[in-house]
Amino acid sequence: MATAGKVIRCKAAVAWEPNKPLVMEEIEVAPPQAGEIRIKIVATGVCHTDLYHLFEGMHKDGFPAVLGHEGAGIVESVGPGVTEFQPGDKVIPLFISQCRECRFCKNPKSNQCEKGWAAEHYDVMALEESRFTCKGKKVLQFMGTSTFSEYTVMNQIAVAKIDPAAPLDKVCLLGCGICTGFGAAVNTAKVEPGSTCAVFGLGAVGLAAVMGCKFAGAKRIIAVDVNPDKFEKAKVFGATEFVNPKDHDKPISQVLAELTDGGVDFSLECVGNVGVMRSALESCTKGWGVSVVVGWTDLHDFSARPINLIAGRTWKGSLFGGNTTSYKNIIPQMVKAYLDQKVKLDEFITHNMTLAQVNDAIELMKHGKCIRTVLSVSPQ
Amino acid sequence: MATAGKVIRCKAAVAWEPNKPLVMEEIEVAPPQAGEIRIKIVATGVCHTDLYHLFEGMHKDGFPAVLGHEGAGIVESVGPGVTEFQPGDKVIPLFISQCRECRFCKNPKSNQCEKGWAAEHYDVMALEESRFTCKGKKVLQFMGTSTFSEYTVMNQIAVAKIDPAAPLDKVCLLGCGICTGFGAAVNTAKVEPGSTCAVFGLGAVGLAAVMGCKFAGAKRIIAVDVNPDKFEKAKVFGATEFVNPKDHDKPISQVLAELTDGGVDFSLECVGNVGVMRSALESCTKGWGVSVVVGWTDLHDFSARPINLIAGRTWKGSLFGGNTTSYKNIIPQMVKAYLDQKVKLDEFITHNMTLAQVNDAIELMKHGKCIRTVLSVSPQ
Repeated sequence: MATAGKVIRCKAAVAWEPNKPLVMEEIEVAPPQAGEIRIKIVATGVCHTDLYHLFEGMHKDGFPAVLGHEGAGIVESVGPGVTEFQPGDKVIPLFISQCRECRFCKNPKSNQCEKGWAAEHYDVMALEESRFTCKGKKVLQFMGTSTFSEYTVMNQIAVAKIDPAAPLDKVCLLGCGICTGFGAAVNTAKVEPGSTCAVFGLGAVGLAAVMGCKFAGAKRIIAVDVNPDKFEKAKVFGATEFVNPKDHDKPISQVLAELTDGGVDFSLECVGNVGVMRSALESCTKGWGVSVVVGWTDLHDFSARPINLIAGRTWKGSLFGGNTTSYKNIIPQMVKAYLDQKVKLDEFITHNMTLAQVNDAIELMKHGKCIRTVLSVSPQ
Repeated sequence: MATAGKVIRCKAAVAWEPNKPLVMEEIEVAPPQAGEIRIKIVATGVCHTDLYHLFEGMHKDGFPAVLGHEGAGIVESVGPGVTEFQPGDKVIPLFISQCRECRFCKNPKSNQCEKGWAAEHYDVMALEESRFTCKGKKVLQFMGTSTFSEYTVMNQIAVAKIDPAAPLDKVCLLGCGICTGFGAAVNTAKVEPGSTCAVFGLGAVGLAAVMGCKFAGAKRIIAVDVNPDKFEKAKVFGATEFVNPKDHDKPISQVLAELTDGGVDFSLECVGNVGVMRSALESCTKGWGVSVVVGWTDLHDFSARPINLIAGRTWKGSLFGGNTTSYKNIIPQMVKAYLDQKVKLDEFITHNMTLAQVNDAIELMKHGKCIRTVLSVSPQ
């Protein structure tokens, strides 16, 4: 391509400081270095994690930064030593890398690659080197991805190649929320055929968890949310029942225990609230109930009574659909499942906008008025 | 037997009220009713759960009561309809029953029989009907067992028949602590060959957990206790390393992470302290670490940061070695493993006393001066 090896000047939404709207800027994107790939981002979802880091005190990478981590695009050029990708490949950037060499990648139980964005500090978000500058300042890459930009540069260990037939404005959602919820049910909870499940929180991640429960063969899928409007959507993905905690005077765990002869087999917390995490655990049956923390928060402790575990429950967590090293394989498999109509993506998309409207999309999400907004970023 | 069908008058240690020494009394033990078995208790261990309920506010069954739940004995007589047992059988009373009919017994993942002592209230200790009286008062049966008595009456669903060759003054320990620790490692954590484990707390349950880790093939077993005297004993059961948290300024989880390149594969909390539960979780490696709560407490919440689970750790709990319905089978298997010298029991016993010395045994345990005291109760 004509741009290969040169700095690209392009549009990006820059977060100059916390708690302020993003600003559309012209930024410079350096060419990919050894082992790196420069990607033209075609579409990106707006995920609550973007907001969370921008507005809720979790952005440990610092500012200025380009947010966005749920995108899909086309390889523009590759740096020295890259053989797995070539210009024109359709790809999805991964915020969890897969180096295939570290002790995590080599262990089939884990997806926590040692070299990834999240791994530099023990359990703490780490800074990824950036290829962005704007007005003479280095601009950081959020979650090692930065999809709120027409171009970004990724390390090849954090990119999945996908089917050329994939519509990028749909499969971009596989870059975070949908795989997170779906995988939490299928890979982390390991939902069983015929089981009873409860999903707490019916945002995109929760709906994807509902879809995962159905995919895994659950018989009853109880959708729990304080907003009754969400049930219609949840039914689309497989929910069989709806419970609104606001409709009951007693704790939701007791309501679910009564509905299910003692508690559900599997529960998934897709809110990111430590009180809901406790309720989700307590809603599981003793003996074998499994509760999975999917929603992200790191501002408070979660807690429960020891008897809840001693009585045979299991508390797990899931990051990006957890429990496998093969993201470079799983993402293409999920793309194929979508193309084969085995998983839904279109139904998550409530709004389509352009990158320039990113602040409107953020407002929609802040106020719970969308499931997912997809922003078109660059023309294909 | 001459006593069959008649009330037996015998010695028992009665807890008349909380926080007071037990009193040796003559009590009346009624004949077994339908489905019940009257057992001559030959030997009993003294377990921290007895103390816990007597002294630490957890005795929900009320007073007066006969404590003791880690015993072994011989069937004296059986009630109508009992065909699985006959007088002369060697048996171990079970504080978790196995009715073989309820949804828990029918599920191979659980040992939480619906009909047992612990199950009458949801997650709360329940009262078992008692066959004891003393001085005209009904005396309750603690944990549905009451082994601090020369005779007790059990429901047949809560008794395991064992090999006639078994020495009752040794295998009595399988009635609680040893199966609890051993099973937590083998059945709940599912410790894997070649793995690295940490066991927090080196009482009888912790030492049995160490033994379970070794039995399961762990390569490194790090014993953690604030009392360095316990390490010699832990080595007997398979511990390969010892860490005393008091020897370090930094958190024990950090000490273990440095010793193990990021954390252990499996950790077992055998103390019953919510702070230690948190440390045990945090000591596991992200990605696949499994931490099991074995120590009993129900006075406080346990807690941790959500990231600890989201990063791929699993928090489980274990009751009486957890995760199987077949206690009537497991206890005889453990007895056989002892007779075949595949598991150790003698090495747990630091003191032998008589039932009349039960208060001395309790004092030893309160002050951490024994691993297990076995009381001889009735002559065989």
